[in-house]
Amino acid sequence: MIATISKRGSFSAAHRLYNQQWNYKKNIEIFGKCAYLNYHGHNYEYIVSLTGKVNKVTGFVFSLNNLNEIIQNEIIDLFDHKNINLDINELSSINPTIENISIFMWNKLRNKISLDLSLKITLYETKDNFVEYDGK
Amino acid sequence: MIATISKRGSFSAAHRLYNQQWNYKKNIEIFGKCAYLNYHGHNYEYIVSLTGKVNKVTGFVFSLNNLNEIIQNEIIDLFDHKNINLDINELSSINPTIENISIFMWNKLRNKISLDLSLKITLYETKDNFVEYDGK
Amino acid sequence: MIATISKRGSFSAAHRLYNQQWNYKKNIEIFGKCAYLNYHGHNYEYIVSLTGKVNKVTGFVFSLNNLNEIIQNEIIDLFDHKNINLDINELSSINPTIENISIFMWNKLRNKISLDLSLKITLYETKDNFVEYDGK
Repeated sequence: MIATISKRGSFSAAHRLYNQQWNYKKNIEIFGKCAYLNYHGHNYEYIVSLTGKVNKVTGFVFSLNNLNEIIQNEIIDLFDHKNINLDINELSSINPTIENISIFMWNKLRNKISLDLSLKITLYETKDNFVEYDGK
Repeated sequence: MIATISKRGSFSAAHRLYNQQWNYKKNIEIFGKCAYLNYHGHNYEYIVSLTGKVNKVTGFVFSLNNLNEIIQNEIIDLFDHKNINLDINELSSINPTIENISIFMWNKLRNKISLDLSLKITLYETKDNFVEYDGK
Repeated sequence: MIATISKRGSFSAAHRLYNQQWNYKKNIEIFGKCAYLNYHGHNYEYIVSLTGKVNKVTGFVFSLNNLNEIIQNEIIDLFDHKNINLDINELSSINPTIENISIFMWNKLRNKISLDLSLKITLYETKDNFVEYDGK
């Protein structure tokens, strides 16, 4: 039997949206307040979802304790209380929209989780704005 | 890469469920308290979800500011603080279940959003009762 | 037109995770605090989702009042304020992970709901840990 197990959690980080090819006026036009120069913060909430067979011995698709440890090492240690534009090398030249952050998180976690399990990231920037990405 | 971007929001409206072909007793039997004569209200919460390619220049599937503007014009201005049975012509002869309201919202938004993006509506009547509709 | 209608609710129950084939140390290693001997409790939250045609006469996929009654009889009466390991015969030899409880709930409800409707269970053990199961 196939089920999906999900772990929700959060990290707090600063970011600023902008495209270096554009002047400030154009950045404000496209990204609104998110382009303000001096960064702003969100309490990001994520859901990491794994889909696969329920193991008959444990009753688990995947241990949530193990998943939490992987998320801690791969995501929280990197993002929590950081400035996404300034502190994360791999994202320094990528506009940190929730779309791009989700894709980055998905790639980080995909390397650490068996390919027998499919992986999906849901990422909330605020309770009203969120993205889902499953590797497609 | 394909992602889904979602915008959550709310409107407050009155409605009453009933089928004009039936007498009051039958309406109460099928629709329960929702058939009471003098209307009642909900704080409806919606999630509008768009699935499509992440734009390489902006990092967006679709600008949430633009999506919000479309939702404001197409949905909020029409529904917020209105009586769905009495005030919305297109719904005056349709029983305003969350199924039917979702389908109506989907059709309104579908006209305003590029067909490159797939569209899904989630509509909560209360936190415990909700519907999803994606045009099928 | 096809929509999904969902009903959320909750029950409170005690459980303990363990595999009788293993000693206590191994159980703690795999199940962590969930293997503590004297049981612990959760406010489980469920979402029962039915997907099918919107009935033209009622505007419903399925009456949420009727669905609630089925959930009450099949799930709440069985689980609420019970010890899942001790009080539910069918689960007495199954490790009560949220995966296994969801599968059990799905099977109970599947017997009571027309096969014209597809059925999905979402089950939260805490707000951060949840499972989805749709019969696959």
